[in-house]
Amino acid sequence: MGIRIGMGVDFHQLVEGRDLWIGGVKIPHTKGALGHSDADVLLHAICDALLGAACLGDIGVHFPDTSASFKNIDSKILLQKTFDLITAEGYSIINIDTALCLQQPKIKPFVPAMQKAIAGILGLREKDVSIKATTTEQMGFVGREEGLMAYATVLLQSVN
Amino acid sequence: MGIRIGMGVDFHQLVEGRDLWIGGVKIPHTKGALGHSDADVLLHAICDALLGAACLGDIGVHFPDTSASFKNIDSKILLQKTFDLITAEGYSIINIDTALCLQQPKIKPFVPAMQKAIAGILGLREKDVSIKATTTEQMGFVGREEGLMAYATVLLQSVN
Amino acid sequence: MGIRIGMGVDFHQLVEGRDLWIGGVKIPHTKGALGHSDADVLLHAICDALLGAACLGDIGVHFPDTSASFKNIDSKILLQKTFDLITAEGYSIINIDTALCLQQPKIKPFVPAMQKAIAGILGLREKDVSIKATTTEQMGFVGREEGLMAYATVLLQSVN
Repeated sequence: MGIRIGMGVDFHQLVEGRDLWIGGVKIPHTKGALGHSDADVLLHAICDALLGAACLGDIGVHFPDTSASFKNIDSKILLQKTFDLITAEGYSIINIDTALCLQQPKIKPFVPAMQKAIAGILGLREKDVSIKATTTEQMGFVGREEGLMAYATVLLQSVN
Repeated sequence: MGIRIGMGVDFHQLVEGRDLWIGGVKIPHTKGALGHSDADVLLHAICDALLGAACLGDIGVHFPDTSASFKNIDSKILLQKTFDLITAEGYSIINIDTALCLQQPKIKPFVPAMQKAIAGILGLREKDVSIKATTTEQMGFVGREEGLMAYATVLLQSVN
Repeated sequence: MGIRIGMGVDFHQLVEGRDLWIGGVKIPHTKGALGHSDADVLLHAICDALLGAACLGDIGVHFPDTSASFKNIDSKILLQKTFDLITAEGYSIINIDTALCLQQPKIKPFVPAMQKAIAGILGLREKDVSIKATTTEQMGFVGREEGLMAYATVLLQSVN
């Protein structure tokens, strides 16, 4: 059967003095996500879900954080490169569902812009890119606002 | 292809003086889950997975915890409302798999009742509603019994 | 439709004086995973995903940690037993995607051996068994190297 499942999970610390990029959108906040790239936790989880479904390794294999070429890179470029990789393998995306875990800020106002950014890169309709969010009810490192995490799941199908 | 994937994750604190509702069943325990509704972590994760697969937003969009109409509400009503939303979009459910993470109590004796409750609301066979459980081996906020969390995954198909 | 989704999550403490088995492979490290069996967090997550997709309960139901027969058991045997259970129900596996969360060591050099071990047991091609890894960026119990966790997702199809 020409259908495959993938999942991804990603984590980043929240620190002062960094921008907060989530889902390809810059979110106004007092803290930003720490990382080698722009540390977009949602795009990274989606990249990993796509790579996983195609069994192409993980984001660390393709875009190592030891490489100067990915320093502060816009993660939308990483998503584009990931899309190129799965397309080259003959896969298309059926749909993506994601969940972002962060205590604050509320990301709901930014969800349509995130869907548009992601769908645009992946050649999907916006209704094929779901973005959900939840707090962890003040618990753990997410609840203490030390960091944020994201989950993504995806279905791929073989084009051929 | 008329098939779609969804996932959900939910978190609630465990506190004294509250009932512990999981999967639509009241579990005898010294603590209960804190939340605006009855704080049923498993039903909330399933709602989010269903909404995500249909790309209809998340549980916070549809049932905001700032709304008095959802105060202390039975989450089985939220699951019914969620089912109505995805049905209206032309989707039916293929199967659901879930994992509950809590240190104690053991929920195994209550799993058949949970499956019956959920399957009844969603028009599924009980064998299409899987409920698994694990501890976190005493680690983190779940391990310290400060809270519990649940994951859900679902496949939907278009009826038409 | 003869397709079903499953997911699994597992957690183990990391302690001195134990071997570190991940994905059926012994990883050189200063700590190992604590558990009743060999505590292979990745194989346990895969077992739970397979059992969940087939709605056959969870790993604790089939291989209880109170049973002497599973003391220090090689989790590859548990994976084989799980495979036998889902095969007896008429299911075959489409693909598996996993994510391992641990701070160190780097498991990338061991991924091909893990894929080979798992694919061999489950009668899959190695390209149908995806193994990804991430740190939690020093956060939480995984970040403090107190433990590790793993997620698995799977698609099954009915053979008949």
